[in-house]
Amino acid sequence: MDCIFCKIIKGEIPSNKIYEDEDVLAFLDINPCNKGHTLVITKEHYETFNDIPKDKLEKLTSTTQDIAKAIVETTSCHGFNIAMNNKKAAGQLVPHVHFHIIPRFDNDNVVPPWKHGKYEEREAEEYCKSIKKRL
Amino acid sequence: MDCIFCKIIKGEIPSNKIYEDEDVLAFLDINPCNKGHTLVITKEHYETFNDIPKDKLEKLTSTTQDIAKAIVETTSCHGFNIAMNNKKAAGQLVPHVHFHIIPRFDNDNVVPPWKHGKYEEREAEEYCKSIKKRL
Repeated sequence: MDCIFCKIIKGEIPSNKIYEDEDVLAFLDINPCNKGHTLVITKEHYETFNDIPKDKLEKLTSTTQDIAKAIVETTSCHGFNIAMNNKKAAGQLVPHVHFHIIPRFDNDNVVPPWKHGKYEEREAEEYCKSIKKRL
Repeated sequence: MDCIFCKIIKGEIPSNKIYEDEDVLAFLDINPCNKGHTLVITKEHYETFNDIPKDKLEKLTSTTQDIAKAIVETTSCHGFNIAMNNKKAAGQLVPHVHFHIIPRFDNDNVVPPWKHGKYEEREAEEYCKSIKKRL
């Protein structure tokens, strides 16, 4: 498969590896929003968050937390973003699931604010009902 | 405690609840980036991702996945963001941990692209070494 992250896992493309076990790999983002910006990926190739089996999801998230703690200590950042973009429409550049851990500093503006909208009357209730029905 | 999400949990402030159990609550964001934008929170008050005990983190993430699947079905979105902002510097508005699930559509621009930088020579290796040392 022509996946750049699968190639990093196989060692065919070099990376700055932070952590590795049989299920998970973490390495520095090569174009960091801030220095220390890290990607945490499953070794198995899944495309999105919703495709990860529960046991692997637990391991991925738990490892992401351990690494986030180490990044906060290392960078003395003021905050951090945990983010996973799923599919191109959401900004996913590599179609292999990855959590971003982005250390943040006051007013660094590397992650611009989101645009917020609002619901028309009764619309929120309808969305709520539709989502609940599918759980 | 004067936490707006704790008040939502207690029912002192109304919300459009999507899911609730003894550990986790999910409800619609009142100012959605796109309609269907949902927040998933721990019922226990923790400030950031790094403060959540592992067992609660597992439950929070697993529930977030179940709800993300229902949101994708409901909205027929083209993609979705999973995001947790930690501390004010990272855009956290309510200091009670919450995963955002944001349905996305091609070119909706509700989550603007991040700004990326780069490392000077040898700098990435130094960051990598420093973070690893703290794991």
